[in-house]
Amino acid sequence: MAYEGLILKLDCPDQPGLVAKIAGYVAQYEGNLIEFNQFTDRERNRFFARLEIDTSGMQIGVEDFVVAFEVMGKALGGKWHFRRLPYRMKAAVLVTKTDHCLNEILWRTRLGEMPIEVTSVIGNREDCREIAEREGLPFHFVEMAEDKEAGFRRIDALLTEQQAELVVLARFMQIVPPWMCSRYEGQMINIHHSFLPAFIGANPYRKAYERGVKLIGATCHYVTGDLDAGPIIEQEVARVRHMHSAQDMVRLGRDCERSALAKGIRYHVQDRTIIDGTRAIVFED
Amino acid sequence: MAYEGLILKLDCPDQPGLVAKIAGYVAQYEGNLIEFNQFTDRERNRFFARLEIDTSGMQIGVEDFVVAFEVMGKALGGKWHFRRLPYRMKAAVLVTKTDHCLNEILWRTRLGEMPIEVTSVIGNREDCREIAEREGLPFHFVEMAEDKEAGFRRIDALLTEQQAELVVLARFMQIVPPWMCSRYEGQMINIHHSFLPAFIGANPYRKAYERGVKLIGATCHYVTGDLDAGPIIEQEVARVRHMHSAQDMVRLGRDCERSALAKGIRYHVQDRTIIDGTRAIVFED
Amino acid sequence: MAYEGLILKLDCPDQPGLVAKIAGYVAQYEGNLIEFNQFTDRERNRFFARLEIDTSGMQIGVEDFVVAFEVMGKALGGKWHFRRLPYRMKAAVLVTKTDHCLNEILWRTRLGEMPIEVTSVIGNREDCREIAEREGLPFHFVEMAEDKEAGFRRIDALLTEQQAELVVLARFMQIVPPWMCSRYEGQMINIHHSFLPAFIGANPYRKAYERGVKLIGATCHYVTGDLDAGPIIEQEVARVRHMHSAQDMVRLGRDCERSALAKGIRYHVQDRTIIDGTRAIVFED
Amino acid sequence: MAYEGLILKLDCPDQPGLVAKIAGYVAQYEGNLIEFNQFTDRERNRFFARLEIDTSGMQIGVEDFVVAFEVMGKALGGKWHFRRLPYRMKAAVLVTKTDHCLNEILWRTRLGEMPIEVTSVIGNREDCREIAEREGLPFHFVEMAEDKEAGFRRIDALLTEQQAELVVLARFMQIVPPWMCSRYEGQMINIHHSFLPAFIGANPYRKAYERGVKLIGATCHYVTGDLDAGPIIEQEVARVRHMHSAQDMVRLGRDCERSALAKGIRYHVQDRTIIDGTRAIVFED
Repeated sequence: MAYEGLILKLDCPDQPGLVAKIAGYVAQYEGNLIEFNQFTDRERNRFFARLEIDTSGMQIGVEDFVVAFEVMGKALGGKWHFRRLPYRMKAAVLVTKTDHCLNEILWRTRLGEMPIEVTSVIGNREDCREIAEREGLPFHFVEMAEDKEAGFRRIDALLTEQQAELVVLARFMQIVPPWMCSRYEGQMINIHHSFLPAFIGANPYRKAYERGVKLIGATCHYVTGDLDAGPIIEQEVARVRHMHSAQDMVRLGRDCERSALAKGIRYHVQDRTIIDGTRAIVFED
Repeated sequence: MAYEGLILKLDCPDQPGLVAKIAGYVAQYEGNLIEFNQFTDRERNRFFARLEIDTSGMQIGVEDFVVAFEVMGKALGGKWHFRRLPYRMKAAVLVTKTDHCLNEILWRTRLGEMPIEVTSVIGNREDCREIAEREGLPFHFVEMAEDKEAGFRRIDALLTEQQAELVVLARFMQIVPPWMCSRYEGQMINIHHSFLPAFIGANPYRKAYERGVKLIGATCHYVTGDLDAGPIIEQEVARVRHMHSAQDMVRLGRDCERSALAKGIRYHVQDRTIIDGTRAIVFED
Repeated sequence: MAYEGLILKLDCPDQPGLVAKIAGYVAQYEGNLIEFNQFTDRERNRFFARLEIDTSGMQIGVEDFVVAFEVMGKALGGKWHFRRLPYRMKAAVLVTKTDHCLNEILWRTRLGEMPIEVTSVIGNREDCREIAEREGLPFHFVEMAEDKEAGFRRIDALLTEQQAELVVLARFMQIVPPWMCSRYEGQMINIHHSFLPAFIGANPYRKAYERGVKLIGATCHYVTGDLDAGPIIEQEVARVRHMHSAQDMVRLGRDCERSALAKGIRYHVQDRTIIDGTRAIVFED
Repeated sequence: MAYEGLILKLDCPDQPGLVAKIAGYVAQYEGNLIEFNQFTDRERNRFFARLEIDTSGMQIGVEDFVVAFEVMGKALGGKWHFRRLPYRMKAAVLVTKTDHCLNEILWRTRLGEMPIEVTSVIGNREDCREIAEREGLPFHFVEMAEDKEAGFRRIDALLTEQQAELVVLARFMQIVPPWMCSRYEGQMINIHHSFLPAFIGANPYRKAYERGVKLIGATCHYVTGDLDAGPIIEQEVARVRHMHSAQDMVRLGRDCERSALAKGIRYHVQDRTIIDGTRAIVFED
């Protein structure tokens, strides 16, 4: 995605001829469709699409193209979103104690797998300071043990200041208050250490051990006001056996968490996700 | 397992020297250990073992070997179980409408993958009669729409008459009453069409669809009085995406169900499982 | 796919505006796009698409729609193919000894998962006669031990007579001669019992055992004149461990074979595959 | 493995009573068996075992226990190896350009998942210097472009100097000469970026792309004089589809490589592997 381009995400009520209309709009101005994904939810008669457009040969300016789309978008009764490429999304990472998810994000960002710019790492403990700072990133310790609410206001202020467009809860072990879930709706991604909806809440590996499951997992999802019930972006599982203690599951589960979170962030940042109520459409790459 | 032999399953409080004692007992009479699996639950200090013994070269009769073990077994404070080989377990299969699990069992039995003898197929609908009968198996229709309790008493009578040692609920869509769960404790295996503990109860694929999970699954477990909460023997998952309807999940899930159920039955029939409270130790092959 | 409709498969050199043109053609006659998949191979500048169209509301007859497309198809320099829906493809199944793949095909066909009509089962041994006949299907034994070439001519005659559009090699243990590979190019599907290109040719499980791999697999592919080198449609793997003998791998591999073959046939019959040289584009469902 | 203990690995010709003898030896001195794994290769009549023993309650010194075992070991005609616990194995990591495998090793070592002490990172390019040095590890650049043989002698000297017990080829892109393969037999582990034996040698992702496989993978194996043909410890695969370019496969394959290598090293360092000709017995944890 290093070229001059646009990503268009759209969802609207289904009607015949939608693909022709939308692709026709792009073709009319000689935009070049690099990738085109669409999905029609037959149950709800709703249409979802993602277009990746090379704009370098277009006959009109990108701004004009975006503005002029408004007529069509409104006529379709749709919601849509344009993203200019190339793009790196400003992302803040919230952590508590464990660093494996943070480490994964930093490594993949360095590698160019994730088009994000980490604005800072924010922790309610000091444990991840070193890993953040040696990557050259600011680390903000936010005290939450005494006054949780004040802590979240402080985090919110930091996010605003950093103009974070994405908030990643990378094993951040605090329940985000409803007002903050609302404010960052569709922009806050969590990794939960179970294959949801199994084992919602605290200590999922312990619960998994006690239930005697043969598969453990991790779930990357958007955060909503309902604990661990937001739209799921990606899930990963690993086999476990009777000899695996809850502690072994923590170890084995880390790999699921890293993988599911990394994929989830990548899909979000590449605008491959469209939230549709309690579900997420994901146009995988 | 075509040879003359024994399987010994044992669980007892842990103590040093257990392996030496048990293996020593076998060696003393010149039994030949074909396979030896053990596991010590450190959390609860409990020892679990499964021994497969070729008895053809033994210096004493198999009966004497089994009887004489009692002294050691009691001294260890253990529970144990011997099985003479070769062995085919008498199994009754309970069904309702769908036949994919039944079909899988019949096919694998024919192939020799499952050392069972299907005594009969029992259905609360007529749908699976044909597939049972063309395999040369008796099919018993048990009316349950009007009087469920009478239906279960009838099933129980059939099981007793057939001397069934194993009852397989192969997508049997009725909740087994507590008295029957008790009577067949550790001998009744169910396939549930979700990765438990997610989506307990009816319509799990519909629930999975609505929750927007990215993985669906199936769970093979022992039946207890708690609905879908018995010890898990095997679980299987498959990836799903946003374009999969609940109906697609039914289709994709069938493969998980068949696989998990077949493995679960095989483990049970080969005495590879030891139930330990809410969990099942499974010495896989 | 029970509705009145069309599937259009197309591949042509890439050019801007292709999606708009093709979708525009459909929209112009008020065909309703049920599913639209496309892919552009950037390396070779080639465009591939599959459209599933509900034709019930179209303003022109389906025949006219198909014929009139010719102008556009030629202008694009493309290859294309239309399929009328609903559709069941005539398929002959070739077998030798083992019946698990045949059994899987029959079961899934009965269930409606595979829109095929099995015209007959053809075997160079008698082993699968019973399973075919009890399904009500003709079984043709073709002697190949003495004169292989005559056997293949006999098979070819049967296929012609049955107007088979698809030939499934369901663990058919004979190497198909080049002339027959050519005649059924893109219409003959094989299941090979390894994850190709590993272990080409005979006895792959034995080779896998000796190599000490930790994963075994199966590959469903189109048959070409190069042994086991045709375009791959689907692959499946299963974990194995040191205690698994070559015989265990045969058992575990069967599940991979059944699954990969069933998916491969389904993709082919739903026109979800486009062969592109040594590779197959697969628009999964 | 933080306790005072021993790991015993043994392989010898099979004979009746082996488990009793070996476990009896441990019990006789009141060693406590923490874990006991064994496997009998029926095809070759060979017995393999791994014992993990808590020695804290033993009646004799650990040295005496080890020495006294010699009588039994020789009587069994076996090969055996004792390891004192706790233990951290001295490991040198060889790299070229890409750092994902190195990064994974360093992170897991820091976390305590891998009981190794990285003695140094050795590269034939400078690319990984920074990541090594910021972890506080010495980085040795070894020039190999001009004189490959001299380079390997230099590496050998470094390994000797550091008393490395394990050499990890973490995407080290040079073919190790036979004399060095011999010298580090059973002590040198490589990660190959394909599911061997498919795509031996250079550019496996490119080859996988061209072959059109639907699964890519990675293989962790012991290095022998035969290129990519040493005993396999672990393999991992990932699904790919037609839209994945060779470059995408590089990205997706990295996760397989990291996972397979990490598991392979862990198994080796915990003495869970026994090399048996071209195969590796792996007692997984």
